[in-house]
Amino acid sequence: MKNLPLVCTKCGKSFRMENLQYRCDLCNEPLEVELLTCGKISDGNLLTQTMLERYAEFLPFASLDRDISLGEGFTPLIQSESLAEKLGIGELYLKNEAQNPTWSFKDRGTVAGVQHARKLGYKRIGTVSTGNMASSVAAYARKAGMEAFIFVSKNIAAEKINPIAIYNPHLIRVDGDYGNLYYESLKIGQTNQIYFINSDATFRIEGSKTIAFEICEQLHFDMPDYVIIPTSAGGNLRGIEKGFREFHACGLIENVPKIICAQASGCSPICNAFHAKQEEVSRVLDPHTIAHGIENPFPPSGNQTLRLLKRTGGFAVAVPDDATIKAQAMLAEIGLFVQPESAVPIAAIQKLRSENYLTGKEKIVSIITGSGLKFTEALTHHTLTSVECKLEDISRYIRDNFDQ
Amino acid sequence: MKNLPLVCTKCGKSFRMENLQYRCDLCNEPLEVELLTCGKISDGNLLTQTMLERYAEFLPFASLDRDISLGEGFTPLIQSESLAEKLGIGELYLKNEAQNPTWSFKDRGTVAGVQHARKLGYKRIGTVSTGNMASSVAAYARKAGMEAFIFVSKNIAAEKINPIAIYNPHLIRVDGDYGNLYYESLKIGQTNQIYFINSDATFRIEGSKTIAFEICEQLHFDMPDYVIIPTSAGGNLRGIEKGFREFHACGLIENVPKIICAQASGCSPICNAFHAKQEEVSRVLDPHTIAHGIENPFPPSGNQTLRLLKRTGGFAVAVPDDATIKAQAMLAEIGLFVQPESAVPIAAIQKLRSENYLTGKEKIVSIITGSGLKFTEALTHHTLTSVECKLEDISRYIRDNFDQ
Repeated sequence: MKNLPLVCTKCGKSFRMENLQYRCDLCNEPLEVELLTCGKISDGNLLTQTMLERYAEFLPFASLDRDISLGEGFTPLIQSESLAEKLGIGELYLKNEAQNPTWSFKDRGTVAGVQHARKLGYKRIGTVSTGNMASSVAAYARKAGMEAFIFVSKNIAAEKINPIAIYNPHLIRVDGDYGNLYYESLKIGQTNQIYFINSDATFRIEGSKTIAFEICEQLHFDMPDYVIIPTSAGGNLRGIEKGFREFHACGLIENVPKIICAQASGCSPICNAFHAKQEEVSRVLDPHTIAHGIENPFPPSGNQTLRLLKRTGGFAVAVPDDATIKAQAMLAEIGLFVQPESAVPIAAIQKLRSENYLTGKEKIVSIITGSGLKFTEALTHHTLTSVECKLEDISRYIRDNFDQ
Repeated sequence: MKNLPLVCTKCGKSFRMENLQYRCDLCNEPLEVELLTCGKISDGNLLTQTMLERYAEFLPFASLDRDISLGEGFTPLIQSESLAEKLGIGELYLKNEAQNPTWSFKDRGTVAGVQHARKLGYKRIGTVSTGNMASSVAAYARKAGMEAFIFVSKNIAAEKINPIAIYNPHLIRVDGDYGNLYYESLKIGQTNQIYFINSDATFRIEGSKTIAFEICEQLHFDMPDYVIIPTSAGGNLRGIEKGFREFHACGLIENVPKIICAQASGCSPICNAFHAKQEEVSRVLDPHTIAHGIENPFPPSGNQTLRLLKRTGGFAVAVPDDATIKAQAMLAEIGLFVQPESAVPIAAIQKLRSENYLTGKEKIVSIITGSGLKFTEALTHHTLTSVECKLEDISRYIRDNFDQ
């Protein structure tokens, strides 16, 4: 590995990268790899290089194990003029992370975590998740020939557990305080030589950075005003912000876009703290939203998210589920079927626009975190239509009901 | 459009590309765009070009409408040494089409069909499908601002229709002989100005070619011995074969790989005809397989598939559903969760190896056609395990049950 220190995101205390440490022993805030200040994008053919290879100079690995890759990253950035117009903003771009190997953004962070785990000699990885991250860690463990320990809550439904279990990890249904499992898992990992790649693990952040790197390339380094991100633990938002910050420090872009943290009203601890002008998030007591992937009542990178919203001049916004369902339909109307979490930013843009936080000329990138196929139950909240018609009557039906 | 004729795949009769004609009026066999004999791959950055742009010189369009794209193609080719070893072959590569915008290979053919439909001035597209193709056509119609007419069978289940309906197409549940709907839809399309992009539509084939183009690039133009493809109507197989044939005609590769057509025993019309040494497929009367996406009892490109298996020196093989389920688990063990259709080729390789059709040194590319999330019901056929554990007992459980 490159010889870079890990730095506390709050107090700046340094730690050695060779030690598996997630949080500062002084302030219990998350660590990040020290910012790089120079680097060059590899100019290879994306069909024959991996995501980590393309951005190798901006990553903390001295060498890369290629066999770990499942073909993550290099996802499309789709411009939609019609949705931008509907939302009343200047330009809208959707970064579609649903085209990853396990159909969510998690694969980027997982592959970086697995790289690190291997370098440190670990043969086991783990995570605490009932959704995207669980599938991702289970899949990459298989690819890398490692054991995976996945902690899910005791009462997880069969339809949620099966798409994780198919990868055949050690799947443990935990009877106990699931809310505390994030911190418990780090201790269990230490005792049992398991490298936990949780939602805001230091090296998961390194993988998430590549979302920002790709956006820069895809926009020809002409930065958007805002990047809006569905936010749960805060890991992905931290990674994307760090990616922009690093490209800026390396002189590749002129400015860092403002970051908007989008949450569901039924579970918005970061948004609550932001609007109360507090420096620390408080636990949400009764979280409830259809956007289960961002239903974290006490986000471990919540405080750091607040710090960097302030740093970039961004803000936080929360929207109710009914607005999210409508936004999910709006995205489907431009050909993108996303999980509810990924519709939250679109509903948030509507809200920000109606409250005049946005003036109407902004260029915005919204992150689609995962596939609509992940949670098809959400479809029952939509009014979906079809008609029955006899084969011999179809032509007449079309003629009578649609303009020629 | 480029001035290329459409040619009957059987008799060679020529037709004008400006007319929307799918089949030869003499022999009722499918048409294909005349083979190109020179061309160059565009050397742009894949993050800022589309799939059709990269291979524009090998496609029949004089210009390309970029706003139609949802970011299809450029999917990974994953090598698996462990699965190659388990199967007893030399090298195995998986082309993962599950990372497309609607999570199947169909998006490549759909985007090419939509390009053609626009050039011809159509404002409506359609298809006959209850699965991957329906979602794909519905999504791309949205992106292109066109109307979509999707014909599904009358008794389609809610869980199948909802992920199509979310894109809000004109969804028609057809009461009548669904098996005959392919041919009926072409007539309905003619009467009602709907461009049907069915499974083996001439321009869908042009999109499918890009799978072969990318494989060539990803293997550095060093061809595999075999490419094995789950086969239903025959459209994707035809496209992939044509892609290799065209690169060969253009001097980019030295030889065309042999093509293997993989089917499910419960519905294997092409395989049946191949082994009976017949030149035409016969309708399967009682089709039944868990691999619903390849359950076409009377494939419209079946005869052409037979002709090109002969031409490339390939063959056809069918496997029972229990072997497919086992193969689905084998792919999950290397980190790939695929729909059952996409596991059929792996089961087929096992069969071919055990019957000594393969000697054990072959380099094989297998096509993964779609995501396992498309049909999670298949997971009920697997033995999936998890354990319940009290939070405070997890460390002991791990220590007691797993080697350190």
